[in-house]
Amino acid sequence: MQLVNHRFTLASRPVGMPKRTDWAYEEEAVRELHEGELLIRVLFISLDPAMRGWMKQNRSYVPPVAIGEVMRALGLGQVVASKNPNFAVGKHVSGTFGVQEYFISEGNGLIEIDPRVASLPTFLNVLGMTGMTAYFGLLETGQPQLGDTAVVSAAAGAVGAVVGQIAKIKGCRAVGIAGGASKCRYLITDLGFDAAIDYKSEDVTEALRKTCPQGINIYFDNVGGDILEAALANLARGARIVICGAISQYNNTGPVQGPSNYLSLLVHRATMKGMLVFDYADRYAQAAQEMAGWMAAGKLKSREDIVEGLETFPDTFLKLFKGENLGKLILKVVAD
Amino acid sequence: MQLVNHRFTLASRPVGMPKRTDWAYEEEAVRELHEGELLIRVLFISLDPAMRGWMKQNRSYVPPVAIGEVMRALGLGQVVASKNPNFAVGKHVSGTFGVQEYFISEGNGLIEIDPRVASLPTFLNVLGMTGMTAYFGLLETGQPQLGDTAVVSAAAGAVGAVVGQIAKIKGCRAVGIAGGASKCRYLITDLGFDAAIDYKSEDVTEALRKTCPQGINIYFDNVGGDILEAALANLARGARIVICGAISQYNNTGPVQGPSNYLSLLVHRATMKGMLVFDYADRYAQAAQEMAGWMAAGKLKSREDIVEGLETFPDTFLKLFKGENLGKLILKVVAD
Repeated sequence: MQLVNHRFTLASRPVGMPKRTDWAYEEEAVRELHEGELLIRVLFISLDPAMRGWMKQNRSYVPPVAIGEVMRALGLGQVVASKNPNFAVGKHVSGTFGVQEYFISEGNGLIEIDPRVASLPTFLNVLGMTGMTAYFGLLETGQPQLGDTAVVSAAAGAVGAVVGQIAKIKGCRAVGIAGGASKCRYLITDLGFDAAIDYKSEDVTEALRKTCPQGINIYFDNVGGDILEAALANLARGARIVICGAISQYNNTGPVQGPSNYLSLLVHRATMKGMLVFDYADRYAQAAQEMAGWMAAGKLKSREDIVEGLETFPDTFLKLFKGENLGKLILKVVAD
Repeated sequence: MQLVNHRFTLASRPVGMPKRTDWAYEEEAVRELHEGELLIRVLFISLDPAMRGWMKQNRSYVPPVAIGEVMRALGLGQVVASKNPNFAVGKHVSGTFGVQEYFISEGNGLIEIDPRVASLPTFLNVLGMTGMTAYFGLLETGQPQLGDTAVVSAAAGAVGAVVGQIAKIKGCRAVGIAGGASKCRYLITDLGFDAAIDYKSEDVTEALRKTCPQGINIYFDNVGGDILEAALANLARGARIVICGAISQYNNTGPVQGPSNYLSLLVHRATMKGMLVFDYADRYAQAAQEMAGWMAAGKLKSREDIVEGLETFPDTFLKLFKGENLGKLILKVVAD
């Protein structure tokens, strides 16, 4: 039987918010496997703000997606054919499979996952790169101390929600910044944040002053722009700012908004540090085990916002930039 | 005999570059000492970019100079009268004396200095706060490793010149950024920098790319603005940026220019950290001893740009912002 793969390739580099026409939706025959290869049927695709960065020509921490190349994305799938003795048919694996239905791998960089531990989408969320980013960004770069006030932006998003929950586990006060009253309610009621700030209806600088009267010890930044400015204006002495992302800036057509308040780093002897999860690859397994323990103990919730249908990708991806997702945005390749 | 004190008080908060009329030049009788007090005749006044910050209303690491108050400045003087058993007449001391001829102290915060160790102005330069700022900023915040490339801005200025020389002592490549060919020659010929970039005639981003082919490991920033941007565009992985000052921004009438390239911190897993010398007060003596040793061994030069006459203060101070000083700018209160 000849398998057919559908995929989105990058057709042009977006200017501002990506458009449907920046990708091409293509169909191709799945070729035969060579010795050592395996065929993965992609079940779930992780949609992440970082993907917008991969579409740019700029030099960054990974090469950009080339024009005509399948759009890069993390995913989770099942081995459906194998000429690789390490990966038997039926096994579940995660890796960088791209926005497509099938992926042929030589086995490099695959992480085998055990579906008995948690639901499959969880492995793209708390037990995947999202969780690892929150875990290592907060614990290694943020260096939380008991009693610290930890503030996180995009707090109802994938990484932010996990950051706030781990901050609580580590004995910090967790303050989340999110857009809209319902997200703010969710942070407090469902995730146990101590306070939430609605950036759509509140003056964030003023709200941080009120909710963090001793100043911010840790600011975990996913958004950049005006919210980073507001956090810089409210630091405690010795504060740590974790630069994880800057979603407010990714679709800029002009220059990135630099933090005008950066001299607050001097006034408060504070640190601003960038983090990339890939640097901790050798500790993923250990971190995932600890996170799974927290989940089992009811201390950590993994919430996914799952949209069905590969063909919805261009629209679904934009939910990230419109703030429409609650929890980890995941594309389920085949609708139920 | 009735002593008369001349002093500059803050008359108004400057908008942009300070003007002569932002200060008042006043004369007052020096009052009698109370028990426990001593009278210091100010000999040398340290002129520092930070003073511009102290003139602003903003909340910062110290309260602003109040309108009508003597302009704050570090200085070096001699005890000329004393009702304090700890400070005998004739002793030399440094402290925050202000821009004036006489200062009455209760003895708090004074550092006694030994004029046999070095010339008096050296105690406002390499052996004073300038040297301490360079020493702790580079060694504690910059964390130099053997073979690192260390870049410093305002490299022919007071702090920058010391940073570059200590970087060399610690086995780094030292690259200085300064304004003009003669300053650049001075850095290489007199101070032993490995390379110098003239920001007035060169594209700094491009010049850093050429002089730092492996990227910048340490960037010690005294200037902010476009030069900070250029450094951010040329970081090595794991780079440390020391935020010591931002002289290019102090006279801005608009907002501070935030570093648009700050996401380079993420790409390069780099750190940007603010430093304030006062945090290391308990280690000044030990550092000064090590610095004096380097000076005695000919590894560290202390160069001062001394201008005579208290009354020249408003004009002399502006040399800092016009880049007219070479080495540490010091006001000698009484002309020879």
